[in-house]
Amino acid sequence: MSDPCIPLAVTMGDASGVGPEILLRAFIGGALPTDCVIFGDLSILKAGAECLGIEVPINCLASLDDIKENQLNLWDCGCLQASDLTPGVLNAAAGDAAHQYVTQATQAALRGEVSAVVTLPMNKEATQRSHPTFTGHTELLAQICEVDDVVMMLATDEVAVSHVSTHVSLKEAIERLTAKRLSRTIELTDNALRHFTAEPRIGVCGLNPHAGESGMFGTEEHDVIEPVIDELKSRKMSVSGPYPADTVFRQAIELDRFDALICMYHDQGHAPMKLFAFDRAVNVTLGLPIIRTSVDHGTAFDIAWQGIARIDSLRHAIQYAEKMLSSPGPN
Amino acid sequence: MSDPCIPLAVTMGDASGVGPEILLRAFIGGALPTDCVIFGDLSILKAGAECLGIEVPINCLASLDDIKENQLNLWDCGCLQASDLTPGVLNAAAGDAAHQYVTQATQAALRGEVSAVVTLPMNKEATQRSHPTFTGHTELLAQICEVDDVVMMLATDEVAVSHVSTHVSLKEAIERLTAKRLSRTIELTDNALRHFTAEPRIGVCGLNPHAGESGMFGTEEHDVIEPVIDELKSRKMSVSGPYPADTVFRQAIELDRFDALICMYHDQGHAPMKLFAFDRAVNVTLGLPIIRTSVDHGTAFDIAWQGIARIDSLRHAIQYAEKMLSSPGPN
Repeated sequence: MSDPCIPLAVTMGDASGVGPEILLRAFIGGALPTDCVIFGDLSILKAGAECLGIEVPINCLASLDDIKENQLNLWDCGCLQASDLTPGVLNAAAGDAAHQYVTQATQAALRGEVSAVVTLPMNKEATQRSHPTFTGHTELLAQICEVDDVVMMLATDEVAVSHVSTHVSLKEAIERLTAKRLSRTIELTDNALRHFTAEPRIGVCGLNPHAGESGMFGTEEHDVIEPVIDELKSRKMSVSGPYPADTVFRQAIELDRFDALICMYHDQGHAPMKLFAFDRAVNVTLGLPIIRTSVDHGTAFDIAWQGIARIDSLRHAIQYAEKMLSSPGPN
Repeated sequence: MSDPCIPLAVTMGDASGVGPEILLRAFIGGALPTDCVIFGDLSILKAGAECLGIEVPINCLASLDDIKENQLNLWDCGCLQASDLTPGVLNAAAGDAAHQYVTQATQAALRGEVSAVVTLPMNKEATQRSHPTFTGHTELLAQICEVDDVVMMLATDEVAVSHVSTHVSLKEAIERLTAKRLSRTIELTDNALRHFTAEPRIGVCGLNPHAGESGMFGTEEHDVIEPVIDELKSRKMSVSGPYPADTVFRQAIELDRFDALICMYHDQGHAPMKLFAFDRAVNVTLGLPIIRTSVDHGTAFDIAWQGIARIDSLRHAIQYAEKMLSSPGPN
């Protein structure tokens, strides 16, 4: 259950991208909750507001409980000056700063000073200039939280979709499909959905076309997936499958047969979901000791600071975090 | 160009499934063109009409040019009696008969006696009872036409999606991604779409998430896909990519940037398309010496002969075949 005194953190993302303008326009549009703290840079937000021709009252916090109503509450990380960058152009300092925002927000969440972390996009290449081993936003959060393995869930009102693996080659994704990993993916998804529903109905996709068609097109369903489903069923979880991935999305979305689907690899879940719910899906990281949601888009350098980036995805990401905070949770 | 005297063939599919009732109701609903011949069994269609409580005048053809208006023109294959089967129950004789309808229709097409073949669904297991080596409808057509390799394209008004491989395990699908096969898939797709548009815009998906993200998540994009695209571009084809499969469908469907997409494996194309265009996508087999389209659903034994199966998919499959016949074609 959330503590009303503890604010929710939103990280500004890479300053060369659409993050700053989305924050400013979300504030103006009433899409930021009152109890929300931005982890970013004052200089950038001021320059962004000027660039967009809007006035945004900014409250720079001395401590995280110093929230003021009707102001954009900012934890000024003091990393970056607007004069250091050109909007839309890859910038090493902006990449480094984005890394800082996430690090500070996550550490604050681990200390219990913020209730959840909602992130705007980083730029991988920009951050790699200063952090060569940086592979992704989610991996960074896992590292700060000292967690080995996390699960990416794309959530919409209709269905949530979790992935056994994400950012690895398809060949490696097949290798990563182990009973342990699949089991953990299903359990974390079940756990997350128990924030909202007592007994989440979880459908598990096959790895192969037609879920292997009784072994004709692959054996992973029989060897790995079915035993895991049987084991979790025996523990009274409402999990079933494996289902052919080409028809199960309709069963979940249009026929409301599932609350969540488990996908075996990145594109199996992402391709239908990004078609069905572009700009609406919230990226939720499961397996961390904190609640973390993210927008479902990138830095979009091509339209940065032009005041045209859509704020819907941030709105959805905040709402999902709030929903998770306001519900009693699984335990 | 189609010859108006040559009828189009529609095969009845497995008689235990929804094929017969779809035909009867399509006829009543005006969804069957006048110049259309059913390859099926008189006994089944008569029993189906009686079961549905509808009157359908059936003209049993003595020769394929003996078409009569306002009648259901039937090439009675004489394989099956209605008393031999129970609707909705797997039946070896019905599986064998369905094999016959397709064989006879395809042979008629090869002889130029029908202009195209539109197929209603067979049941794999039922047909395997009499033809143990039967692996699928499309493979049967390829065999009759003496063609080694065909390509499955799912077509809608918005976009057509072709697959480098279909009914093989995901592991084998990765192995099947060769320059030769990819090149042929793109060329056949380009060729098919030239029925409708002078220069089809073809987008090629990556195999790996984010199309490999510059080699971070796999090398097939660099090693196989990019060289093929470069080679076809040099031959003035409007082909581009590789694109991340999780965003390119929206670019094709909502933003109209492509006429066709090339997918590297079954679910990459089928999962988004069956969500987006359930009951609307037409299955087109490329690489045959004849035009063949198919409905995009199975035998649906659970609702067979109940008069509730949707006829839309057959309507779309016929319309697509007619569109291909009525346009000048690529050469």
